[in-house]
Amino acid sequence: MTKPAPDLKAVIMAGGSGTRFWPLSRRKSPKQFLPIAGRKTMIEETVERILPLIPYRHILTVAGRDHTRTIKRILPKLPAKNALVEPLARNTAPSLILATASVYLRNPQAVVIVLASDHLITDPVLFRRKLRAAAAAAAARECLVTFGIPPAFPATGYGYIHYRRDAPWKTAGDSFYPVLAFKEKPREKQARAFLRQGGYYWNSGMFVWRADVFARKLEEHAPDYFPFWRRTLEALRSGSPARLKSVFQEMPATSIDYALMEKARGVVVCEGNFGWSDVGAWSSLYDVWTRDRAGNALHGETLALDTSGTLCFNPGKFTALIGCRDLIVVDTKDALLICPRSQDQRVKQVLEHLVRSGAKKYL
Amino acid sequence: MTKPAPDLKAVIMAGGSGTRFWPLSRRKSPKQFLPIAGRKTMIEETVERILPLIPYRHILTVAGRDHTRTIKRILPKLPAKNALVEPLARNTAPSLILATASVYLRNPQAVVIVLASDHLITDPVLFRRKLRAAAAAAAARECLVTFGIPPAFPATGYGYIHYRRDAPWKTAGDSFYPVLAFKEKPREKQARAFLRQGGYYWNSGMFVWRADVFARKLEEHAPDYFPFWRRTLEALRSGSPARLKSVFQEMPATSIDYALMEKARGVVVCEGNFGWSDVGAWSSLYDVWTRDRAGNALHGETLALDTSGTLCFNPGKFTALIGCRDLIVVDTKDALLICPRSQDQRVKQVLEHLVRSGAKKYL
Repeated sequence: MTKPAPDLKAVIMAGGSGTRFWPLSRRKSPKQFLPIAGRKTMIEETVERILPLIPYRHILTVAGRDHTRTIKRILPKLPAKNALVEPLARNTAPSLILATASVYLRNPQAVVIVLASDHLITDPVLFRRKLRAAAAAAAARECLVTFGIPPAFPATGYGYIHYRRDAPWKTAGDSFYPVLAFKEKPREKQARAFLRQGGYYWNSGMFVWRADVFARKLEEHAPDYFPFWRRTLEALRSGSPARLKSVFQEMPATSIDYALMEKARGVVVCEGNFGWSDVGAWSSLYDVWTRDRAGNALHGETLALDTSGTLCFNPGKFTALIGCRDLIVVDTKDALLICPRSQDQRVKQVLEHLVRSGAKKYL
Repeated sequence: MTKPAPDLKAVIMAGGSGTRFWPLSRRKSPKQFLPIAGRKTMIEETVERILPLIPYRHILTVAGRDHTRTIKRILPKLPAKNALVEPLARNTAPSLILATASVYLRNPQAVVIVLASDHLITDPVLFRRKLRAAAAAAAARECLVTFGIPPAFPATGYGYIHYRRDAPWKTAGDSFYPVLAFKEKPREKQARAFLRQGGYYWNSGMFVWRADVFARKLEEHAPDYFPFWRRTLEALRSGSPARLKSVFQEMPATSIDYALMEKARGVVVCEGNFGWSDVGAWSSLYDVWTRDRAGNALHGETLALDTSGTLCFNPGKFTALIGCRDLIVVDTKDALLICPRSQDQRVKQVLEHLVRSGAKKYL
């Protein structure tokens, strides 16, 4: 007898503040709302990527009030009730308790697919096949599924998932490896050891679980959080934003990795070899954008003389680059950034400076 | 018996197109109309520098029709009839024949002081003392006076004046050296030889002559031009712009150096040690602007992290520079330039590109 296909719900987390793409991304227009990795905004691309699998009525977003207004504007087909508003920004554990509880109230056995709103996937066909397999595994095996990315280099900017390579479950045509441990962002030496040893994936932050299984795992392995789960359900049933806010105020602001995934049993990882990038900084966009023969990724009317390895984002304006090597140049209406590609992490120092100096208009 | 002080007239040449400060300078707003080397536009600074010596009613400007409109707006105190309009842009010989003829019609014995509208003088007191001495020499000795700049390095971007060091005339408390030859812009090897030998100045393009002496020198040493001098006088007397235009159409478009100074006898040079700069390119402005401890010359709200030797002009906008070395960064409403300081001469390649590609709006 064929099992019925699971009831899939996508939860798109869109609360990120996206400071690393300053000066293009701002407090009010973070990365997920910008068309930087394709023709449409990243959140639109995220939705369109899953639409063949999940219709709008089963797609939910989670974000703060301001971002939710933007989401409704960008995604007019999203049912209003599916745009969940976090009363406070409290990291991913509270967001996902809220989102999973919302799904639970519709159908406790529905499968929740947790996605970021600002990641890039270059092979959407494989991505959807993997999601379908992960949903089937989560539904049938009552496990928490996570996606692990084959590490391309010893990154220090991602958490890692240590898994057992020798004993995968085979479900729905895919392999699911038992997770041994979640490792926080390592130092470079440790990251290199992970790659040498093998059996490590980057933690993509994408998860798949059945709503009722998520609740049970919380009860069994994250007893500190379970009361909040119940109170969140009650607040949602009551329809009282004030009650939900008081739950959020008390909930510890931790990541779902720390609150649940690290502690739970029955966590498995599926290889996310579908061309994932979290597009975490300007140099990641440089990797993603089309480049000319000299390795320049130029958006805008640009003359590049004796210039190579340079990303220039300056649409609506003429840019002349002479003798530039491996630069990031980003020009917007009120702010300009010039930075070597290798130093794009220092953009956060600029933001710190703007906060310190009270120049909020540039944030 | 004390001689009467000569009747001084200043002629400020303001026809330059100033392409070397792109994207700040444009066809319609060349360097002389920009406040780049001081608080006011360069032409205003030029006028204010000589006002203690020469009142507005004795200051004339020479430029094309469009530039003259700008001059009248920038210099509202300049008498309208003193803003001479060149019917065509035909290099400096026609401009100075027109200007000197205009002065001649007011007073043939008036002394004409020819100045550029876009040069910087850091010691205006000494400058005025030198102008007074040169005017006295030009009036009394009936010679053509030019100012030579002590060469600071073997520049290939200036013409040179070769002079006799051993036999200066002493007049009005200054020394005037007989000119042996005008040398066009040399190659670097030759420039180095000039500096090694001594007896060479940079040609500043500033001249002092009595109007009637200028006419006589043309007649004696530049007979090809003398008929144009007479026809220019007639056209000015007639007040017919069409007549003046037809004179300009026929006059050879050459520099006054080539047309007259090189050929004339009785040309002397006075040392222009008053802190002259023609501010010929962005790196010259870098030399002139105030710099911070890291050697950055920053105009605009700028955060410079680990950045040195960089000129950044971006007023009205916030700029973040990270890890930049010896760059020129110039941001305007519709165009952005990024270029190593050592390559600022290549700005002309950008302009060539814009002409070739028909992108005239950026010129």
